[in-house]
Amino acid sequence: MSAKSPLAVPFPAMPAIAGVTPRIARAHYKEWDRCDLTFVELTEGTTVAGVTTRNVCCSTEVELCRENVKGGRARALVVNAGNSNAFTGFRGREAVDAITSQVAAHLGCPHSEVFVSSTGVIGVPLPKDKAQAGLHAVFNAEPCSWEDATNTIGTTDTFAKGAVASAMVDGKRVELVGIIKGSGMIAPDMATMLGYIFTDAAIEPAFLQQLLSEANRKTFNCITVDSDTSTSDTILAFATGKAENAPLHSFDDAGADAFAAALHDVCRQLAHLVVRDGEGAQKFIEIEVTGAVSDDSAHRIGLAIANSPLVKTAIAGEDANWGRVVMAVGKAGEPADRDKLAIRFADKWVAQAGLAADSYDEAPVAEHLKGQEIRIGVDIGLGSGTATIWTCDLTHGYISINADYRS
Amino acid sequence: MSAKSPLAVPFPAMPAIAGVTPRIARAHYKEWDRCDLTFVELTEGTTVAGVTTRNVCCSTEVELCRENVKGGRARALVVNAGNSNAFTGFRGREAVDAITSQVAAHLGCPHSEVFVSSTGVIGVPLPKDKAQAGLHAVFNAEPCSWEDATNTIGTTDTFAKGAVASAMVDGKRVELVGIIKGSGMIAPDMATMLGYIFTDAAIEPAFLQQLLSEANRKTFNCITVDSDTSTSDTILAFATGKAENAPLHSFDDAGADAFAAALHDVCRQLAHLVVRDGEGAQKFIEIEVTGAVSDDSAHRIGLAIANSPLVKTAIAGEDANWGRVVMAVGKAGEPADRDKLAIRFADKWVAQAGLAADSYDEAPVAEHLKGQEIRIGVDIGLGSGTATIWTCDLTHGYISINADYRS
Repeated sequence: MSAKSPLAVPFPAMPAIAGVTPRIARAHYKEWDRCDLTFVELTEGTTVAGVTTRNVCCSTEVELCRENVKGGRARALVVNAGNSNAFTGFRGREAVDAITSQVAAHLGCPHSEVFVSSTGVIGVPLPKDKAQAGLHAVFNAEPCSWEDATNTIGTTDTFAKGAVASAMVDGKRVELVGIIKGSGMIAPDMATMLGYIFTDAAIEPAFLQQLLSEANRKTFNCITVDSDTSTSDTILAFATGKAENAPLHSFDDAGADAFAAALHDVCRQLAHLVVRDGEGAQKFIEIEVTGAVSDDSAHRIGLAIANSPLVKTAIAGEDANWGRVVMAVGKAGEPADRDKLAIRFADKWVAQAGLAADSYDEAPVAEHLKGQEIRIGVDIGLGSGTATIWTCDLTHGYISINADYRS
Repeated sequence: MSAKSPLAVPFPAMPAIAGVTPRIARAHYKEWDRCDLTFVELTEGTTVAGVTTRNVCCSTEVELCRENVKGGRARALVVNAGNSNAFTGFRGREAVDAITSQVAAHLGCPHSEVFVSSTGVIGVPLPKDKAQAGLHAVFNAEPCSWEDATNTIGTTDTFAKGAVASAMVDGKRVELVGIIKGSGMIAPDMATMLGYIFTDAAIEPAFLQQLLSEANRKTFNCITVDSDTSTSDTILAFATGKAENAPLHSFDDAGADAFAAALHDVCRQLAHLVVRDGEGAQKFIEIEVTGAVSDDSAHRIGLAIANSPLVKTAIAGEDANWGRVVMAVGKAGEPADRDKLAIRFADKWVAQAGLAADSYDEAPVAEHLKGQEIRIGVDIGLGSGTATIWTCDLTHGYISINADYRS
C-alpha cells in the first residue's frame, strides 16, 4: 500500500451477516506478500442484484455478472486482486469458466450462482493454475473478518473501506454491511470499483435490483476521480434472508422504505470512501448544482466541473479561482445563461448575476479552501434541476501514482 | 515566461503582409514588465472570417467577434493580455465598447470593423483607463515584428508560436502568416487559443469563412491539452487583398485549392504548436483512429483517449500501458467491439482481436515511448471512419502550473 490518504477514515465496526462467510487466501496473482483471493460463501436462497460498468470494453467477469444477476440467486462471490483479466479474449473467458466450475462443484450449486470479479492490470489473462490452487486453499481457510476481506479485494487502495447500516423491517432488525475497493479510474457510471453489500434481510431480487439501481444513480454515479471508467466496475448486493422478515417485494411492504434508506446510506458511504481514496487526493470536494433545467442537466454540469483538471488543480492549490468553475459550466454543453449564473464556496457567494459578487470577501473563502472538505455551489438560474457530485482535487500524487503503475 | 517547453520549436522567418501593420505597447493590465497590448491595423477593404469557442459562458469580446464577422470587413484587431474580461457582466461590456470607440475614432472606421480579444484571468473587469492609455501609446508606436506581436498576445505561453505558408493564386504569390497564443484550458471546439491569420490574398469573406471553418474542424478542433474549453477562444483570419489576385469566391476559382491548402497548413501548424506548449507537456502525442463507424465517431473516440488522464500519465511515464487505451475506447460512448479492437504504438501492434498481439515485443515500443513524438493507433474494426487527434502527456508540470496560477 502507498501512504494512507489524508482523507482516510477508520474501518468501522461491522457485524457478521448471518448466511455470509468470507475467507481469503494467497493465489500469488502478483509478486506480492499479501492475500489476493477472496471467497464469500452465501447461504442457500440468497438473492442478488447488481450494477456494472457501461464501458463497452468490459471484462468477461462483468459480462458474467450481468448474465447471472438475471437469475436473482447467488451462492458464492470470488474476487481476484492484481489482475483484472480484462481484454484477454478467449484466454480470459477460460479462466473465469474454470473458476466458476471449481466453485460450483465445491458448493454443489449451479454455475449461474457463482459471481466472479477481477481487478488489476488490464490485458494479461488470469493464470488458471494460480486461481485453481488459490481456490483450493481458500475453501479450506478459516472465515476472516470484513476488514481482512476488504484489504484482500484492494489493489492501489490506501485504506480499507467499509460501511454499515441497519433497518427495522417487519419487526426484525436487519443488518447491512458494504465493502469496496477503488481509487483511480473512477468515473460516473461506476468506477474502478468493486463493491459488495451483504444483508441478512429477505428481499425479492427484482425489488433489490430496483433499490440498488436507484441508490446507484444518486451515489456511485455521482462520484468521479479522473473521469476514466474502468472495464471491470461492479457493485453487487446479496441478501441472505436470515433475518427472517417477511420478504420485501415492493414499497408497499412494511419496512421497505427503511431498508431502501439503509441501502442508500451504505452506497453513499461507500461512494464517498472511494473519493476519499482518490489517487493523490488531498481534498474531498462536494459540488451542488441547483437551478438547472433538469436533474439530468444538473448532473452533467456537476460532472463537467468535477472532471475539469483546471478546477481540480485550483482546489489543490487552495485558490478561489471561480472563473474556472464558470468555464466548466460553460463547456458542459447544457443550457446555461452566463448572466444568471451564481457561484459559491461553502456558503459564501463569490459571483452572482454574471459577475463577481459585490459582497465578495476572499478571506473566509480562502480559509474554507484550506480545509479538507470543500463545498462548491453553482446556481444556474434557469429551472429547478439539482444534483450533487463528489470528487477530489488533482495533485502531484495522482501523477506520481499513474505515471508509474504497471511498469 | 516559465521554462521553455521541451517541445518548443523556433519562431519561423515570417514575411510582412502588405496591408497589415502590427504594433505593441504596455497597458499594464498586470504587474509585469512586458508589453501586453497588441494593435494590428488592417488596410481598407480587408475581409475577415472567424471561429469562436462554444463555451456558453463566453466573453463579451467573443460575442462581439461573432457579430462583427457577419459584416465580413475588418480595419483593426486589438488583443489585451493578462485579463480575459470574461464573466465581468456590464463592466466588461463597457470596457470593450470604450476600446472599440477609441479605435474606430482613430481610424475613422465603423465600430463593426474593430475586433477585440482579451486573455488572462476570468472575472476581473478590464480596466478602462489602462486600455485607453495603452491604446493612446500603441497608436504612436513603431510597427513591430511578428515575433514581438506574438510574445505580446501570450500569457502562460513558454515560446512564441508562428506559422507561415504561401500559395499561387491567379498568377500571384500570396503569403499567409499565423500567430497564436495558448497552452492550457485547451480543448476541442477551440481552446484558450487566440489565433490570428493574416494574408495578402483577395478573398470574399463568405468563402474565407468556409475555408476557415473547414480547416478548423480538422485542426484546432482536433487538439486537446486538458479537456477544458476557454471562455475566450477565437481564431480570426484577415485578408487584405494587397496581392491583387482576382478575388476568390469559390473552389471554382483558379488557385482556390492552393489557397485552401495553405490556410489548412497554417491552421495545422498553429494547432500543433499549441499542443507543443501544453502546460507541463513533455511529449507530443498523435492519436490516429481508424475503422470507426463514422468520422465523427472516430473523432469522439480519439478525444476520449486524448483526454484520459490515465492514458496521458502512462505516456508521461513512458509506460506501454495499452490497457488504458482499451479503457478509454470503451468509455467513449461510441460503437466499439472489444473483440475486434486493435491498438498500436508507432507501427507496432500491441493488441489485436481483443487480446495482446502474439507478435508483441515490448522493446521497440518502450524505445518509441522514450521519444518526444508518440504515435498511438487504434483500429475499431467496425467501419471506415477515421480521425487524427493531437494532445500531450499529463505531468507534474501541469499540476505545478495550474495549482498556483491566479493567487
